[in-house]
Amino acid sequence: MSYRLFYWPQIQGRGEFVRLALEAAGIDYDDVARRTGAEGLMSDMAARRGRAPFAPPYLDADGLVIAQVADILLYLGDRHGLAPSNIADRYWIHQVQLTIADLVAEVHDVHHPVDLSAYYEEQKDEAARRAGVFRAARLPKFLDWLEGAAEANAGEWLIDHRWTYADTSLFQVIEGLRYMFPRRMATLAPRYPALARVHGLVAALPGVRAYLSSERRIPFNTQGIFRHYAELDAE
Amino acid sequence: MSYRLFYWPQIQGRGEFVRLALEAAGIDYDDVARRTGAEGLMSDMAARRGRAPFAPPYLDADGLVIAQVADILLYLGDRHGLAPSNIADRYWIHQVQLTIADLVAEVHDVHHPVDLSAYYEEQKDEAARRAGVFRAARLPKFLDWLEGAAEANAGEWLIDHRWTYADTSLFQVIEGLRYMFPRRMATLAPRYPALARVHGLVAALPGVRAYLSSERRIPFNTQGIFRHYAELDAE
Repeated sequence: MSYRLFYWPQIQGRGEFVRLALEAAGIDYDDVARRTGAEGLMSDMAARRGRAPFAPPYLDADGLVIAQVADILLYLGDRHGLAPSNIADRYWIHQVQLTIADLVAEVHDVHHPVDLSAYYEEQKDEAARRAGVFRAARLPKFLDWLEGAAEANAGEWLIDHRWTYADTSLFQVIEGLRYMFPRRMATLAPRYPALARVHGLVAALPGVRAYLSSERRIPFNTQGIFRHYAELDAE
Repeated sequence: MSYRLFYWPQIQGRGEFVRLALEAAGIDYDDVARRTGAEGLMSDMAARRGRAPFAPPYLDADGLVIAQVADILLYLGDRHGLAPSNIADRYWIHQVQLTIADLVAEVHDVHHPVDLSAYYEEQKDEAARRAGVFRAARLPKFLDWLEGAAEANAGEWLIDHRWTYADTSLFQVIEGLRYMFPRRMATLAPRYPALARVHGLVAALPGVRAYLSSERRIPFNTQGIFRHYAELDAE
């Protein structure tokens, strides 16, 4: 089985949730657009027919093409044991992943509240209003819930005694939020010891450590989903 | 196995995607808050510990509690054969469901672009701008993709020769969009014959027909996700 991952080569974005799971598991993959540039991704997208992806990221597994981060991770989880096999844990981990996906969508809307195709600079007033609501209400609501999810397990990870794709996704969303909202996240940090625990455990996984220190890890920037604009952050 | 569905009793909302799959399959369920009122839902939410839902809808299957529409449908699909069993079709149908979920989230943001906790009337200007972008760009982009998904199968449904949970979800999203944007959807209709085909097939399923004509089907209204505000619609 050879994997080709298709995603924008300049950003972490949604593709990063897939990259992290693959890297943590030591699964080989070709991050196509890192070689070809965005043009290679766009021409691949344009050439696909039938069951084509709605948007990147998508994974081509010897011709089986899967888009949507949560669906890709479901597949990788099933195939490579990156998810628990018992029924209750299996749907629980997917539920955590889908809730993280909802959080990521809201993060994106903070800087693009009214026009997804326009620049942030064209919707700064609306973004400021949305960011205020996000920092005050939505962010703590999501983090409270994720903290509860991490507390629900007596073990170290979200489930039992080993990491799953939801752990790597939780790591990434914490990373992104710390980059985007450093002041707000510093204020909130004491409320979330279990999230800090899981974040630290993921960061210490050998595959993740190697990845984060490699040039394969693209730095956060203001082209991606998590964007640091100082005016959108506050304590 | 007995199912208890927890969702707001006054709206179709996200719960409707679960209700429709259950009704189409003839699976018995207790729509709890239709009996108890919203108070019953809220007190149930507040009492849950450990692996608690982030938000309704959630399904309690003899103590196994699953939230997130796509996760609930994945579970029902696995358990009741409402999804294909072969690998490629299985992840494809889930991918369609997740893309419909993204569309539903964008529909919600049309009337709540900057503050999820405030009334539509407090963000009408922002909503008007977002609605314009949605009608012109995002809606056709999603519908083009869904049309392609419906065309990708030579059979009648999204997959092969029988309905899956993605078909009932596709039906619901078309229903909702026709209610919310009657003028825009009328203009776009000729471009989407395959979507009309699947919509019609789902509407004719005996379980769905019976449900739609029952009082279990709550009419669309301006409390739900799909809301008709004439000022947000246009040809």
